[in-house]
Amino acid sequence: MRKICLEIQYKGEKFVGWQTQPNGRSVQEVLENRLTFLLKENIKLFASGRTDAGVHAICQIAHFEMESDFNINKLAQAINFDLPNDVRVLSAKEVSKDFHARFNSKRKTYLYKLYVANTIKPLKNGFAFQVNKQLDLKKMQEVAHLIEGKHNFRAFCATNTAVVDFTREIYKVDIKNVFDEIHITVCGNGFLYNMVRIIVGVLVDVGKGKLTREEVENMLKTGVKPQKIKTMPAYGLYLLSVEY
Amino acid sequence: MRKICLEIQYKGEKFVGWQTQPNGRSVQEVLENRLTFLLKENIKLFASGRTDAGVHAICQIAHFEMESDFNINKLAQAINFDLPNDVRVLSAKEVSKDFHARFNSKRKTYLYKLYVANTIKPLKNGFAFQVNKQLDLKKMQEVAHLIEGKHNFRAFCATNTAVVDFTREIYKVDIKNVFDEIHITVCGNGFLYNMVRIIVGVLVDVGKGKLTREEVENMLKTGVKPQKIKTMPAYGLYLLSVEY
Repeated sequence: MRKICLEIQYKGEKFVGWQTQPNGRSVQEVLENRLTFLLKENIKLFASGRTDAGVHAICQIAHFEMESDFNINKLAQAINFDLPNDVRVLSAKEVSKDFHARFNSKRKTYLYKLYVANTIKPLKNGFAFQVNKQLDLKKMQEVAHLIEGKHNFRAFCATNTAVVDFTREIYKVDIKNVFDEIHITVCGNGFLYNMVRIIVGVLVDVGKGKLTREEVENMLKTGVKPQKIKTMPAYGLYLLSVEY
Repeated sequence: MRKICLEIQYKGEKFVGWQTQPNGRSVQEVLENRLTFLLKENIKLFASGRTDAGVHAICQIAHFEMESDFNINKLAQAINFDLPNDVRVLSAKEVSKDFHARFNSKRKTYLYKLYVANTIKPLKNGFAFQVNKQLDLKKMQEVAHLIEGKHNFRAFCATNTAVVDFTREIYKVDIKNVFDEIHITVCGNGFLYNMVRIIVGVLVDVGKGKLTREEVENMLKTGVKPQKIKTMPAYGLYLLSVEY
């Protein structure tokens, strides 16, 4: 038995997300079908974590086990040979038996792309979220620092969750201008359901002056999410990297 | 009669190009239909130039005439209110009667996006061209300088053209790394059919070591295009700006 670790990139638009669902096309299913066909054995993939419908991955990590003696140096290319254009294996390498893409992950980094404009820009559509008002980046950065650290993030996750422990550690929230876009990266040891999209929603409202620093402090203290907090759309979100 | 100048952005993927064609969806047709409906008069658009099927525009310029007294400050927003997501008017302003988007243009700049990778990257697919071999940017830059200036560009255009004068002036060919992409911008007073896509094809072959500086000098001298010269695909090409 050999254990293989893949780096995977995908465009989220036409996927129901990473995880196989009864209805709809998932990244997991597309890749498992391809691997099973190529290696002539039943392959089950384990990712670093799910990504939701529409979320992109610049670099998702997943592992699988195989009996095959397929040449590891030719594996990525062979998998890619018959994949749809919205998913590709960037690399494949053999890893030790005790590696697990999900349980061994130490840090994950997500990226959210925004741009300020009066109208959506067709060339950014589906890849970055349009904000129609100038944002106060300085205020956003101050609040970003508040969010950093170990907190109860109950107020920063979707309400339909089975999770009981809402404690997570955010190592870094970075906000920077990249040409005509604003890139927000959030690095942490783990994330609750919709957590990054809610953090970005909070930061954007702070940048617009619709939410105060005190209100965000209160969210962290009480675990209560004010009704006005928005979850940003999936298409601006990218899984950027997973560290082990 | 008022003359209006529009800045327009579009994603080329699902258009047969700028110009209205008997079959297929053109940018011109989509916008003329929208303007005619909105202003309740027959509108004809004149662009700075055509773009081919699949070519994107970061900023195309077009003008039209209207009798309407529609508030110019609300016009762009009103047009955008009912447009498909792959085309948007970025701005609208009133211009003098003697302005012509095509005949008054002094310089145009095109951008071509490339990236070097073993496999296509799903998040760049349709927006940048994948090259599977390292490129020698220094050699490419040397040849880019050769192309700058006033030349007979017969060897740098598609053969199916009705043009008789192949003389154009290229003011600047710039090649630079932008994160993990290579951006080639070509600025000139006018372009022949497929000229930018052929210039980029030449530069990429030079970067790969498949074409020598001497062969490019020969193309400029003789006007003959060697058979091996490729026209790069449309989806990597962007009309970046038009100057008046």
